[in-house]
Amino acid sequence: MRLATRENGTPDGELLVVSSDGTRGIPAGAPWPNLLAAITDWTAALPRLSDLATAVETDGEAIALAALRAPLPRSWQWLDGSAFASHGQLMQIAFGTDPIDTAKPLMYQGLSDRFYGPYEAVPFLREADGIDFEGEFGVVVDAVPMGVSPAEAMNHIKLLVQINDWSLRSLAVPEMKTGFGWVQAKPACSMAPFAVTPDVLGDRWSDGRVHLDLQIAWNGERFGNANGREMQFGFHDLVAHAAATRDLVAGTIIGSGTVANADYRVVGSSCISERRAIEMISTGQAETGFMSFGDRVRMEAVTPDGGTPFGAIDQIAVRRE
Amino acid sequence: MRLATRENGTPDGELLVVSSDGTRGIPAGAPWPNLLAAITDWTAALPRLSDLATAVETDGEAIALAALRAPLPRSWQWLDGSAFASHGQLMQIAFGTDPIDTAKPLMYQGLSDRFYGPYEAVPFLREADGIDFEGEFGVVVDAVPMGVSPAEAMNHIKLLVQINDWSLRSLAVPEMKTGFGWVQAKPACSMAPFAVTPDVLGDRWSDGRVHLDLQIAWNGERFGNANGREMQFGFHDLVAHAAATRDLVAGTIIGSGTVANADYRVVGSSCISERRAIEMISTGQAETGFMSFGDRVRMEAVTPDGGTPFGAIDQIAVRRE
Repeated sequence: MRLATRENGTPDGELLVVSSDGTRGIPAGAPWPNLLAAITDWTAALPRLSDLATAVETDGEAIALAALRAPLPRSWQWLDGSAFASHGQLMQIAFGTDPIDTAKPLMYQGLSDRFYGPYEAVPFLREADGIDFEGEFGVVVDAVPMGVSPAEAMNHIKLLVQINDWSLRSLAVPEMKTGFGWVQAKPACSMAPFAVTPDVLGDRWSDGRVHLDLQIAWNGERFGNANGREMQFGFHDLVAHAAATRDLVAGTIIGSGTVANADYRVVGSSCISERRAIEMISTGQAETGFMSFGDRVRMEAVTPDGGTPFGAIDQIAVRRE
Repeated sequence: MRLATRENGTPDGELLVVSSDGTRGIPAGAPWPNLLAAITDWTAALPRLSDLATAVETDGEAIALAALRAPLPRSWQWLDGSAFASHGQLMQIAFGTDPIDTAKPLMYQGLSDRFYGPYEAVPFLREADGIDFEGEFGVVVDAVPMGVSPAEAMNHIKLLVQINDWSLRSLAVPEMKTGFGWVQAKPACSMAPFAVTPDVLGDRWSDGRVHLDLQIAWNGERFGNANGREMQFGFHDLVAHAAATRDLVAGTIIGSGTVANADYRVVGSSCISERRAIEMISTGQAETGFMSFGDRVRMEAVTPDGGTPFGAIDQIAVRRE
């Protein structure tokens, strides 16, 4: 099942059940008019949404992609991991920081009151802050009790999403050195238009990992196509980590961190900062600059037959007036 | 004006306008049935709430304190500072970490989907996690635009609150050393029953600081009464810091960090970890243990004439079954 959220003038938008080809939709309507309401009451909502998913294959109205927002335009909690080991190693080079000594997943809490839509222009105050994208996968859970095991956590993963975790690199290292994590370095993220149930990916959802290439283009040029399978911890491990001492509210979104692979020289990167680290290794200095106002980034996970289950993020960075 | 939230079976509770003696209340009703709705539409809601605040002095129903929840049982964003310099210095001793080198306020993003009520028993899985309280003040803002100045930020501070920022100390240092901030070490906070507009404090709200003693008792014994005035940065500075690269959603709560004073040998502390640091300085080792299941903590800010504008947090830590 594939879900999207259409602009309707409300903060949470209108939940649509979308056809498997992504072209048609049927509003879910009451009593689950938006995705936050549906994920909060998932067991009750699922049969109704599944019925609509069947109906929309032969019925429904054409979707105007431009009217789609993030599947969750806001939620109560966003916790972002950093689960790709090769990314972590390269970021230590990019940031000039010490290796992180922990056997646990890395995770910070980010802002969840706004997720930009896939085609929204994203405002920033200053290019000098080091505007960077980060291509990620994420999961949405229903209510998860404190102390859940990774195996139990797997059953709470109800939806998969694709995320651009916007980052401001000039602010990131000083914040990281305080130990308090990131506030200024992590403005609102963006989300691809479709949230999907795990079955949509077939065997490409396995071991709590999304085994798809994440194609990224910056100003129309190929930037990377790293695969989601190389997570050091699966999403079920990340959910269990997040829930170790708290109940997770339904609608909590957990991110993978920047998708990265060990053969980064072949597949490229999912953020500029990582490419800069690779340049430092190769030539002794970073050559690629961060984003300028007007720059465009496009991100889409692709299946072997060319399908794009999450749709595409395709947006520009702009100056906030 | 003093506001509270009463249990009514909904996630956000029922907003009450409360008399200045804290004994009577009038439900705000539609179109602002709860505080999250009111703060989201503050300019429109304020005249109506002010009228009720006048009426409740001679009218209204008796409040059952036990039915009061946190003024905001949930909100979209919780950002906690660490603005008391003497606390920061002592925590470096308690944690065995290096001094933090930054001229900016310290701040992390915490979970905002649940704030425990003032009298709720608070569940934890393990005493071994090092259960600690942290007495704090906080502010609630309306919508704040990205890049706001500290002076402009002051005008966005609409309500003041009193918070217990529950912390798990055994988990805090390893998380801090990752640079990602705290997830497992920071479960949900609690809030005192009354949120107040700044005018309620008179000249005890000055320079963006709450000039009140925060009285804390642990199992009925006096633990500390540090004053809120010694913040290195005022709340307006903290709001501006938080909004440097993001729009703050209405209802964002910003915390002061643990209230602490330079004369901590006289006024005591607002968390156990800080007392342990003082013991380390005095005797070479920490003697006070963290909380046990069944332990009670009471926190109330007091005015010179003995008033308690926020009411009291008075709750026990319990084992989550």
